[in-house]
Amino acid sequence: MDYENIKKQLTTFLKDEVEKTGMKKVTVGISGGLDSAVVAVLCKEVFKDNFHGVLMPSKYSSDSSINDAKELCEKFDISYEVVNISPMIDGYFSNIKEEATPLRIGNYSARMRMSVLYDISAKQNSLVVGTSNKSELLLGYGTIFGDIACAINPIGEMYKTDEFEFAKYLGVTDAIINKKPSADLWENQSDEEELGYTYATMDRVLKMLIDENKTKEELINNNEDEALIDMLLYRIKTNAFKGKLPLIANIKF
Amino acid sequence: MDYENIKKQLTTFLKDEVEKTGMKKVTVGISGGLDSAVVAVLCKEVFKDNFHGVLMPSKYSSDSSINDAKELCEKFDISYEVVNISPMIDGYFSNIKEEATPLRIGNYSARMRMSVLYDISAKQNSLVVGTSNKSELLLGYGTIFGDIACAINPIGEMYKTDEFEFAKYLGVTDAIINKKPSADLWENQSDEEELGYTYATMDRVLKMLIDENKTKEELINNNEDEALIDMLLYRIKTNAFKGKLPLIANIKF
Repeated sequence: MDYENIKKQLTTFLKDEVEKTGMKKVTVGISGGLDSAVVAVLCKEVFKDNFHGVLMPSKYSSDSSINDAKELCEKFDISYEVVNISPMIDGYFSNIKEEATPLRIGNYSARMRMSVLYDISAKQNSLVVGTSNKSELLLGYGTIFGDIACAINPIGEMYKTDEFEFAKYLGVTDAIINKKPSADLWENQSDEEELGYTYATMDRVLKMLIDENKTKEELINNNEDEALIDMLLYRIKTNAFKGKLPLIANIKF
Repeated sequence: MDYENIKKQLTTFLKDEVEKTGMKKVTVGISGGLDSAVVAVLCKEVFKDNFHGVLMPSKYSSDSSINDAKELCEKFDISYEVVNISPMIDGYFSNIKEEATPLRIGNYSARMRMSVLYDISAKQNSLVVGTSNKSELLLGYGTIFGDIACAINPIGEMYKTDEFEFAKYLGVTDAIINKKPSADLWENQSDEEELGYTYATMDRVLKMLIDENKTKEELINNNEDEALIDMLLYRIKTNAFKGKLPLIANIKF
């Protein structure tokens, strides 16, 4: 892949689309993971000092995450602030009766981060740039009105596997490149363990299903794993709502 | 208007669309205002005991709001729970340096309510039904990823003025019918004072602009107020992003 060319396309996209809105600044939540690192490096390139990063750790995210995020910001001279979201999480969950599952706390945390990002962007008159990659968006592996929420997203058409290579090209720090992909919503969470396959495997089949429009039958004839295909198709179908607008009733008066 | 017929259309919409998702339950945030009252009455009619209301007062919302919400729930035998969102608001704003504007606190509060509603809906395996009316959606008088966020919305094609009459037909309680429209995001907030015109006036002109596709020139020739037309067109244009999905960069590999 021609990473220089891809970088050019994405920086042009960011510059042009933000310009169209009339805004000059952008805000990105930097988690210490690969997605937000790639977006942050692109935003720094385009917006220079008009780009502001927000680090939002909680007691559920790992310490290494915030350290990795800080290291990235230092390497690329990105201005940032830190907002710990634990008090917002406790403000809700410590007042409910039952014990909440890690998934509920994880989704709630993603929405707290969105709320903080949007508040900071309103204060600074900036646009929130999203950080969801194509694999994640297809599989619905994200929180609706949480980490998926944004104004514009430069990497939504890039598969995770390609993003890894692109991140290396951009000079993203080793700690971020070398860690296992994780939504970091609870201790030791691993995307690939949760989904049951590596991104390399999933992306290879997703590209055939989505980009090449191959059918399940064609893939099986091609000796692809049926259980994997079924899992992917099920996730794409059941999570499609996360990429759609609310359904509004038509009324005939 | 034939309110019986409209009620039939909206209850059929709710029944059919929820059924399509495979879910059986719905959740609605009931504020004590007109929009959520109308949606709650429709949901109770369709889903009976599979409908759950959530009242989410804060120290910024008025006491009458929660009382009016409770009265509605009692009249229609709606099961509900109360979640005070003040600790979540304080969990953020008490830790930032500057004094936040009422608008920032208001938008943040709307997002806390969305987060609570979505958590409860995940716990109960139910769908979040939205409560934004057509006037509000057109004018962008709502919070993106806050009160606008939902899975389905039965009243998004109904203007506020028509909704008032429909609410009376449905038997919505007098306290809710008779109060001044307010987002209730801060003390004594009034939609109509903030927007500068009554809903009756705005809706009359919106219907000509949107439903009848009239141009600004045609309306001025028709002796409509130019300042009003400009305000409506400006709001529609600048807030259109709230009804759109994030813009994703296309990549040519």
